[in-house]
Amino acid sequence: MSEVLRLGVAGLGTVGGALLQLIERHGNDLAVRAGRPIAVTGVSARDAERDRGISLTGKRWFADPVALARDPDIDVFVELMGGASGPAEQSVRAALESRKHVVTANKALLAGKGHELALMAEEQGVTLSFEAAVAGGIPIVKTLREALAGNSVSRVYGILNGTCNYILTRMEREGMAFADCLREAQRLGYAEADPTFDVEGYDTAHKLAILCSIAFGTRIDADAIYVEGISSIEPADIEAADELGYRIKLLGVASRTESGIEQRVHPAMVPKSSPIARVDGVTNAVAINADFVGELVLSGPGAGGAATASAVMSDIADIARGDRKPPFGRPAAALEPYRQAAMRAHAGGYYVRLHVHDRPGAFAAIAKRMAEHGISLESIVQRRRAPKADAPGHPVPVAPQPVILVTYATTEEAIKEALAAITADGHISHSPQMIRIESFGAG
Amino acid sequence: MSEVLRLGVAGLGTVGGALLQLIERHGNDLAVRAGRPIAVTGVSARDAERDRGISLTGKRWFADPVALARDPDIDVFVELMGGASGPAEQSVRAALESRKHVVTANKALLAGKGHELALMAEEQGVTLSFEAAVAGGIPIVKTLREALAGNSVSRVYGILNGTCNYILTRMEREGMAFADCLREAQRLGYAEADPTFDVEGYDTAHKLAILCSIAFGTRIDADAIYVEGISSIEPADIEAADELGYRIKLLGVASRTESGIEQRVHPAMVPKSSPIARVDGVTNAVAINADFVGELVLSGPGAGGAATASAVMSDIADIARGDRKPPFGRPAAALEPYRQAAMRAHAGGYYVRLHVHDRPGAFAAIAKRMAEHGISLESIVQRRRAPKADAPGHPVPVAPQPVILVTYATTEEAIKEALAAITADGHISHSPQMIRIESFGAG
Repeated sequence: MSEVLRLGVAGLGTVGGALLQLIERHGNDLAVRAGRPIAVTGVSARDAERDRGISLTGKRWFADPVALARDPDIDVFVELMGGASGPAEQSVRAALESRKHVVTANKALLAGKGHELALMAEEQGVTLSFEAAVAGGIPIVKTLREALAGNSVSRVYGILNGTCNYILTRMEREGMAFADCLREAQRLGYAEADPTFDVEGYDTAHKLAILCSIAFGTRIDADAIYVEGISSIEPADIEAADELGYRIKLLGVASRTESGIEQRVHPAMVPKSSPIARVDGVTNAVAINADFVGELVLSGPGAGGAATASAVMSDIADIARGDRKPPFGRPAAALEPYRQAAMRAHAGGYYVRLHVHDRPGAFAAIAKRMAEHGISLESIVQRRRAPKADAPGHPVPVAPQPVILVTYATTEEAIKEALAAITADGHISHSPQMIRIESFGAG
Repeated sequence: MSEVLRLGVAGLGTVGGALLQLIERHGNDLAVRAGRPIAVTGVSARDAERDRGISLTGKRWFADPVALARDPDIDVFVELMGGASGPAEQSVRAALESRKHVVTANKALLAGKGHELALMAEEQGVTLSFEAAVAGGIPIVKTLREALAGNSVSRVYGILNGTCNYILTRMEREGMAFADCLREAQRLGYAEADPTFDVEGYDTAHKLAILCSIAFGTRIDADAIYVEGISSIEPADIEAADELGYRIKLLGVASRTESGIEQRVHPAMVPKSSPIARVDGVTNAVAINADFVGELVLSGPGAGGAATASAVMSDIADIARGDRKPPFGRPAAALEPYRQAAMRAHAGGYYVRLHVHDRPGAFAAIAKRMAEHGISLESIVQRRRAPKADAPGHPVPVAPQPVILVTYATTEEAIKEALAAITADGHISHSPQMIRIESFGAG
């Protein structure tokens, strides 16, 4: 086992650059830990000329990542280019075809083609590893795949997108609007110029799909995820959450239910006392409920070059030591077809914020609609705005009043139908705001 | 790899029983995950007759664990008896000599003889695994050993003893005295009849010694740890901590300093905003600071049969898949001799509580002693008890007044010398209380 493990690294952006630095700094210790030296022998990136502050001496340069993937002088192809298809996919396929181990941080590629690629890797007798694809430096893939091998997982959930958590944290701390926080996040480099992928929940969904497959032994299916982002969250919701004892977080939740696996990404009200509620800023956290271990929570940096490179190296060191694991924890052929629980059957409490026209009978009509759909209300809060002091005795048209309802556990179907009926009744002036309440008691 | 992996389990207490249940319940899935069936073929326990609610059918019974360890019909010896020496040690040695892999939850054995046993295992070409020895179900050994292979760790610290954390949490919530909380913990089964090992910090020290060896690549040395327990913590300290923005936790801390490795176990004031401060009850948590990953925090159940069995199975599944890692992350021969940083050189802030005689000049004398030792005070709090209302104008001897000092960063040597001088001056009525303040900024 003293032969050098030769890496071909495609993509020399933040993560690729940090990985090269890591190997430069910790090469000696890595060789001791892994039982053999680890060296980058080939690299590929879009721009050969750019100064990355890292030495590429002794590393062959490939303009074409596919050529690097096929190069007979590498043992492991490290894909850090990103993208759900295109060069990333082509080069990963080429590497597997050429019997190279593949290490990737590419969640989009895995979310779409993870099962197929895992089958391919196993057929070729090589490893497909992706610790860095979920939650940056947090070893959540290793934990689910290896540490919890003796458990049946009932739920895995977490804060998987630092951009959203940063925005929600600032909205909460400073009472700022979503759009302003987003601009701040963009200015600080925490959000992309086109933030849709992050703030609308798709990034979280990709990561959740990967965790779900490992947790439940099902084939990855990112299309089966219910996805809702945070752009509709208003300061009024954050404020109401605080008063009700909650904080609002964008959660990815995968859980086993009687009718199948429920996978959903949406803003959720989480009790302030829950560990997940206390995760602030760009930090990520993942919690797992499982039959033997109970609840585990892992938190740490969910992004950033150095932390992601740490996760990439975890996979590389495993390969260097000769550890071979099925990519999703079980042989790809043994993964069960994904059985999706319908979102309409999702059960839980709901927070609802309505702008109700100040008319006689409006409240009664709303309460009746809720009752018709079997929904019990845990609380109703209305803060009536004080009428203008300078017009005593002169009733003026009053603006619609915000009313906040919190329901006891009901179903997604019931609440959606009730809200549709309330909207149709014409007593409210805006679309209703609805946020799911996440309870962590039952596991 | 379709051959059955045969386990010999020595010790059928809470953890051993849960392990057998786990294998019974999840045997099929384990075979899929590990690529081969896993079966218990032999067991050993003190009492063959006891009803454990688990079936021992098909498992051979060994009165002598050493005989089980040597049995040619097992591949892995699972030691769940406990004890720093005696049958546990004898049987582990016998297993390694007979080239069986060993999985153990025995922190006391490892703390004392871990290095020697690791050398032996590597010489025999077998694995010595002990995920369950530290922090129960939390995969901290795997994380440090594998996931952080590409990092240089600067500090690992945590709440590693559920008994102490339970007691401190109750003292805080209910204002109870240490002795009363201990009795409650004993009644609820969270503390042993002889609680010394837990409450005086030795259990934490054993676990810390294991983490330290993996984190820093040094030979395990539990004797090098500075150990102080929680029995001297009084409600007055808990109350003062709360007012100062801290909580008191029994921490195990191992950190790399310029003069060597600092390993210490003692009650510490931790800022309320730190993740570790929010870990309540019997839950454990471990935090790691490392150069590439930044800070990771893992929390979960630190004890209990089921959670510990989960960790034991993690090791067994790795062995079944053929993963082979050096027990402490690096080959035992490559572990550096432990270089101990002197505790007197420990640097940090200190909380000091003194009972000061109400005499002119007492304060001045105390402040002078602090200054003489180069210690700056961040705050001084004295709450003077109101004199008895029924004796106006009649001065009565006043009881010593509690005074709380918080220092800026200084050294252990300076604070100890200053307190010795203050004590010798005769201005205080009790031994001074001193609690270290842990700061988490620097990493």
